[in-house]
Amino acid sequence: MSDLEPKSRPVVRLRPKAEARAIRHGFPWVYADELVADRRTQALAPGVIATLEDAERRPMATVTVNPKSKIIARVLERDADAVIDRAWIAARIERALALRERLFEAPFYRLVHAEADGLPGVIIDRFGDVAVVQPNAAWAEAMIDDLCAALMEVTGVTTVVKNGSGRARGLEGLPEETVVMAGEITAPVPVPMNGAIYMADVMGGQKTGLFYDQRPNHAFAARLAGGARVLDVFSHVGGFALACLAGGAESALSVDASAAALELATKGAEAMGQGDRFATRKGDAFATLEALQAEGAQFDVVICDPPAFAPAKPALEAGLRAYERIARLAAPLVAPGGYIVLCSCSHAADLVQFRNASARGLGRGGRRAQLLHTGFAGPDHPMLPQLAESAYLKSLFFRLD
Amino acid sequence: MSDLEPKSRPVVRLRPKAEARAIRHGFPWVYADELVADRRTQALAPGVIATLEDAERRPMATVTVNPKSKIIARVLERDADAVIDRAWIAARIERALALRERLFEAPFYRLVHAEADGLPGVIIDRFGDVAVVQPNAAWAEAMIDDLCAALMEVTGVTTVVKNGSGRARGLEGLPEETVVMAGEITAPVPVPMNGAIYMADVMGGQKTGLFYDQRPNHAFAARLAGGARVLDVFSHVGGFALACLAGGAESALSVDASAAALELATKGAEAMGQGDRFATRKGDAFATLEALQAEGAQFDVVICDPPAFAPAKPALEAGLRAYERIARLAAPLVAPGGYIVLCSCSHAADLVQFRNASARGLGRGGRRAQLLHTGFAGPDHPMLPQLAESAYLKSLFFRLD
Repeated sequence: MSDLEPKSRPVVRLRPKAEARAIRHGFPWVYADELVADRRTQALAPGVIATLEDAERRPMATVTVNPKSKIIARVLERDADAVIDRAWIAARIERALALRERLFEAPFYRLVHAEADGLPGVIIDRFGDVAVVQPNAAWAEAMIDDLCAALMEVTGVTTVVKNGSGRARGLEGLPEETVVMAGEITAPVPVPMNGAIYMADVMGGQKTGLFYDQRPNHAFAARLAGGARVLDVFSHVGGFALACLAGGAESALSVDASAAALELATKGAEAMGQGDRFATRKGDAFATLEALQAEGAQFDVVICDPPAFAPAKPALEAGLRAYERIARLAAPLVAPGGYIVLCSCSHAADLVQFRNASARGLGRGGRRAQLLHTGFAGPDHPMLPQLAESAYLKSLFFRLD
Repeated sequence: MSDLEPKSRPVVRLRPKAEARAIRHGFPWVYADELVADRRTQALAPGVIATLEDAERRPMATVTVNPKSKIIARVLERDADAVIDRAWIAARIERALALRERLFEAPFYRLVHAEADGLPGVIIDRFGDVAVVQPNAAWAEAMIDDLCAALMEVTGVTTVVKNGSGRARGLEGLPEETVVMAGEITAPVPVPMNGAIYMADVMGGQKTGLFYDQRPNHAFAARLAGGARVLDVFSHVGGFALACLAGGAESALSVDASAAALELATKGAEAMGQGDRFATRKGDAFATLEALQAEGAQFDVVICDPPAFAPAKPALEAGLRAYERIARLAAPLVAPGGYIVLCSCSHAADLVQFRNASARGLGRGGRRAQLLHTGFAGPDHPMLPQLAESAYLKSLFFRLD
């Protein structure tokens, strides 16, 4: 559908009461109830490129339409006559690459962060010569070949994986599938970050195999970790633990429910030559925190980076209680004068709600706290200012008495 | 008054409806309307140490009382029998020092950040062997000799300046005065930070002569500044400009209304051996932004770090308009693909309000933006979680199309 000329492509139209002004000011989405939902629009193929008109039939933007999604249209260009083809995608990737090359010394980063990088619904993580693409909107799935070709052309990556897992694709009516689009993957990819080495399983791992978003927060934890005994709960492939070892920690213990993740973490520690300082414990995080307390264990730095307990509004109350419980169970494990890092990747829990839940939990865990630092996702995860409310990642660094 | 034994010192009592629970959970302040305001309490000398009782006459905490302040009592210790003397102060400074020594390689930092470091109303900035104390609560003014002695004993600093300027002292009914308490000051103090050298005028400067709070934000700006033409508006002694030069900027132009501040900035650039890349322009920031636009000037990185436009609630609306105007006037000066850093140190404007005002201003300045990073004050400015709403410093990093 990329070869449709602007003049001959479908037209969709805002209802009279829709927020044309917000869209003119850069808001990138049109919700289903804002669009005239005639039969022709309902029959459009998911991902089709169309021209968006305002209620007075004035062309406003080039959009992609997915009648199956609550976000029925996503703005690709404010120019209503834009041609959306491989060259257009390549220009967007070039712009994204220029930012990352300014920010990072090595080619390991989130290269494209969806709307904020001008490619709605598209996530691309780069691991050196390997890239993992998540086409989480129908247009990107439809143009996946152009997307991969543009990606390889602009960045020089030789291996491209399409990762089709995750909640976002379900909302777009897209199937789950993970396939190698170019090159080959035979083993976990070693990723250097903050002086540590992580092993990313780009085929079988969670999301794209590694979470780049916590990079600055890993780095901040590492500043606190010189000579410290570190406990990293919900460790995944060792994000905080290995950064703390690189920062001079005496020891690090990773807790996770996934044996596969802990095995990758161990491989990372070994690749760093720090295997002897690193240990793992497989199990449920809540149960393990209780067990460690029963054992009288103490650590100088404790990190809890759980999955989203409150991914969406209906889960908010229960999610905040879970964050409070994590803080309460972890607090007694922190040695006097030690540090605790509490993280949330919940969209529904905002910074104030999460901070209050965390502080309440620390207090109920018998500790008094200073808040040293609040960190968000790293700068390779830019946001549109219009969508900044949705800053999902929050990391709070406390020092305990 | 530090020599009063707990048994013989004054007692103040919460009213029945006061928030005893909040105080038990670590809230450090008692407002005037929460305390039984009998004649005896009204007659207490500002800064006196007293025992706080709840409405049922149960001892709750050791506090300092100032009948002249809206914050009539500040909690010093939750132990109602604590002795507040030089040794007590020294223990608090030791705890604060341990944190800074973990965080920073050189002794240049905010050493004590008031309530969060357990010394209510006391600010201490350290510049190597020099310390500047702001005793912004009456108890600290009353115990200033013990405070200075403890400070020198714990840290080994040899020169101590008491800086008695600023709004906070007025609210406590304290006079303005700046005096050298120990050692001597003959010249600006060179301060190494982020690879730059700043000249701090600890006797005549704003606040304690240098703002440490922006350190991590200076560092982030420096990451963007390699090869860049940098404009630093409201530059003071060159905070962002010199950090950007240290980060490899091609040139930096500092704008400030204070000739004295710009002279210190120039001395800093010269001490770095970068005097040839550094220029200054004295003038009103708004007028200078307009003049630069009229001249067709373009920069790759523009920073605007104004004084608090909305220090308190009544100034909020006007303050937000001023932030929007700054963004609107600065936006056209940013070259395509360049960066803009917008800062607020206003207590009254929260992050969302400031971000919205900034985004609106950038839009009205004709630019589209990605928000890359949100930074707060550095970790040598800890907060009590109970007071975290008051996070005054916000720095927003945008990339413009």
